[in-house]
Amino acid sequence: MENFTFYSPTFFAFGKDTENEAGKYVKQFGGSKVLIHYGGGSVVRSGLLDRVRESLQREGIPFVELGGVKPNPRSGLVYEGIDLCRKEGVDFILAVGGGSTIDSSKAIAAGTVYDGDFWDFYSGKYIEEALPVGTILTISAAGSEGSPDSVITKEDGMFKRGASGNAIRPKFSILNPALTQTLPAYQTACGVTDIMAHLYERYLTNTKEVEVTDRLIEALLLTMVKEGPRAVSEPDNYDARANIMWAGMMAHNHSCGVGRSQDWNSHNIEHELSALYDCAHGAGLAIVMPAVFSYVMKHDVMRFAQVAVRVWGCQMNFEDPEKTALEGIERFRQFLISIGMPSSFSDIGAKEEDIPKLVDVLCNGDGRTGSISGFVTLNEEDCTKIYQMMV
Amino acid sequence: MENFTFYSPTFFAFGKDTENEAGKYVKQFGGSKVLIHYGGGSVVRSGLLDRVRESLQREGIPFVELGGVKPNPRSGLVYEGIDLCRKEGVDFILAVGGGSTIDSSKAIAAGTVYDGDFWDFYSGKYIEEALPVGTILTISAAGSEGSPDSVITKEDGMFKRGASGNAIRPKFSILNPALTQTLPAYQTACGVTDIMAHLYERYLTNTKEVEVTDRLIEALLLTMVKEGPRAVSEPDNYDARANIMWAGMMAHNHSCGVGRSQDWNSHNIEHELSALYDCAHGAGLAIVMPAVFSYVMKHDVMRFAQVAVRVWGCQMNFEDPEKTALEGIERFRQFLISIGMPSSFSDIGAKEEDIPKLVDVLCNGDGRTGSISGFVTLNEEDCTKIYQMMV
Repeated sequence: MENFTFYSPTFFAFGKDTENEAGKYVKQFGGSKVLIHYGGGSVVRSGLLDRVRESLQREGIPFVELGGVKPNPRSGLVYEGIDLCRKEGVDFILAVGGGSTIDSSKAIAAGTVYDGDFWDFYSGKYIEEALPVGTILTISAAGSEGSPDSVITKEDGMFKRGASGNAIRPKFSILNPALTQTLPAYQTACGVTDIMAHLYERYLTNTKEVEVTDRLIEALLLTMVKEGPRAVSEPDNYDARANIMWAGMMAHNHSCGVGRSQDWNSHNIEHELSALYDCAHGAGLAIVMPAVFSYVMKHDVMRFAQVAVRVWGCQMNFEDPEKTALEGIERFRQFLISIGMPSSFSDIGAKEEDIPKLVDVLCNGDGRTGSISGFVTLNEEDCTKIYQMMV
Repeated sequence: MENFTFYSPTFFAFGKDTENEAGKYVKQFGGSKVLIHYGGGSVVRSGLLDRVRESLQREGIPFVELGGVKPNPRSGLVYEGIDLCRKEGVDFILAVGGGSTIDSSKAIAAGTVYDGDFWDFYSGKYIEEALPVGTILTISAAGSEGSPDSVITKEDGMFKRGASGNAIRPKFSILNPALTQTLPAYQTACGVTDIMAHLYERYLTNTKEVEVTDRLIEALLLTMVKEGPRAVSEPDNYDARANIMWAGMMAHNHSCGVGRSQDWNSHNIEHELSALYDCAHGAGLAIVMPAVFSYVMKHDVMRFAQVAVRVWGCQMNFEDPEKTALEGIERFRQFLISIGMPSSFSDIGAKEEDIPKLVDVLCNGDGRTGSISGFVTLNEEDCTKIYQMMV
């Protein structure tokens, strides 16, 4: 196991009706003037936004609002949020929504107290300082509610890039599984896929002897295998939603990925798809992962055989472990299809003729020099072949 | 799943040589005058204490010292520590040792800033305030390095009782697996047993539909099944030690036990053994757990069958699940014996004629009224039978 540091100081309030405590927690974590940041649609229609406003009012905490966050959140709204926070003297950002809203909130939080362009953080600068952020989560997926990460798309060039820093870890996150019961099946499945991707990206490691984190990752994958289809077919199942919600947080707060090298090539390859075609991140991942895994499988057959046996219930083929490895990838692919995820380029409106452009932005955009690195280093030729496997 | 809150703000520095950063972290977390609290023996002999002193000196942080912590730490030394901290104006406590040293440090930290008798906290009062505590862990076992808990034995009556509060969660914990490589096999095995007990106590729940935490607990149990015997037979195996060390922390920082009722009857039943006979806590647990599990198994046969299949590799007996449940308990018992743990009263110097006394203190001591509660409520008759099963 490699040396590491781990720090996850977010306070989690989990369960029914916990969103009504938002004001109390904002006060507890030092907020005196709040920006409520959200998307729109369901947060408004469901009455959630009203309950959050009332919760702040009960505590006498003034607030301003900024809605309009879209999936694959954009830099434009971040700049708007930064201006608003500075003008209004906001000292706490309350994200009400999913990963996009939380990531946008984190970007605003970091940008408001930074002299330069907030995009510097998304070009590799570590975030040392930010306004405190609290979250009320409405979809289990991104894990941003417990992570030090944020992903934003820059409209100029449609780059989708990540930033990181303990300063943007939420001070508190309110996780009420009931809030996710109104999600359509497709969005639920996209969330399930995203969570499983966070687990696989950590599973694909070149570090030896990491049984504890292997087992923890497998535990969360097994949870998704059981609860994912249940949440898709029984949207009102609180317990299925609850198990997924805690798994989604644990999958991405790094406790399962410490001390080991990780992959993240599937995420990088997907980011270009959702940046260009504006598809759901989970939907893109569902197409990307089986292709990537098949392409890199020979790099460590036993690792893929292990997840096949331990998670997908495959019988180990001791004469030909590669067969087991491939069977595990195939079962994962079929699982994704069974919960309603797309399986090829055409399902998300992606086009074969865009592949050169996708590969160029992926491998050369924003400071990269002809390849992406992770479990395996993939050059332009590799990435071209991988995108072609999805057509 | 039940509603819950979860908060684990400890900073972990994990890996080789991390103890040399102790001074840096004390400074980072606001310490300006330190009490170094430790046991003795190996911490001194190995040179660890010297390295910690040097680390503080490099940062220019003055310190006083209090050694002499014993396994099953006593209230007498806690009172001494509180007096010392007040007299010397200590504002940070640095525990160098295992669970006993950390628990004693937490008690001193809470007691120093409290007007009344610190034992109030061990009689049920929640700890709201304490001096900050940092730890340098030398044995994987108690999980105190990441928990809000502390257990102390009161000399007057030999009561062993726990206290809790987020205020006594360590600000930082330094986890260097190499420091545990000098542990004798017996102590290593006691630690492995303690960690597995923390997992089983959470596994035995009456809450339904808690797949995610079931799976996480099983993941850590599986890790111990693989790595425990390896650390016992190959004391210098850094990777085995590392996997156990992270599993030990994760087993007890509550992330795997959230939203579910828990047991803790095995711990309570054991505490009377280690209080009276001063045996190692893990050794006592090795004798207690198989007896308790066999006694309560019929309360939820399927739960015991599940752990038997998922952790102990038993084949499910679909005609008679009770057989599977019992087989899992027996495999656990044999596992404990295989790593050198005791299996009966005589192995730890316990005496059958003491059972009435053990049961009386257990069920009626310190405010209890004739029973202990957990997975199953156990009255004096139950506890008598359970102790008799260990003879």
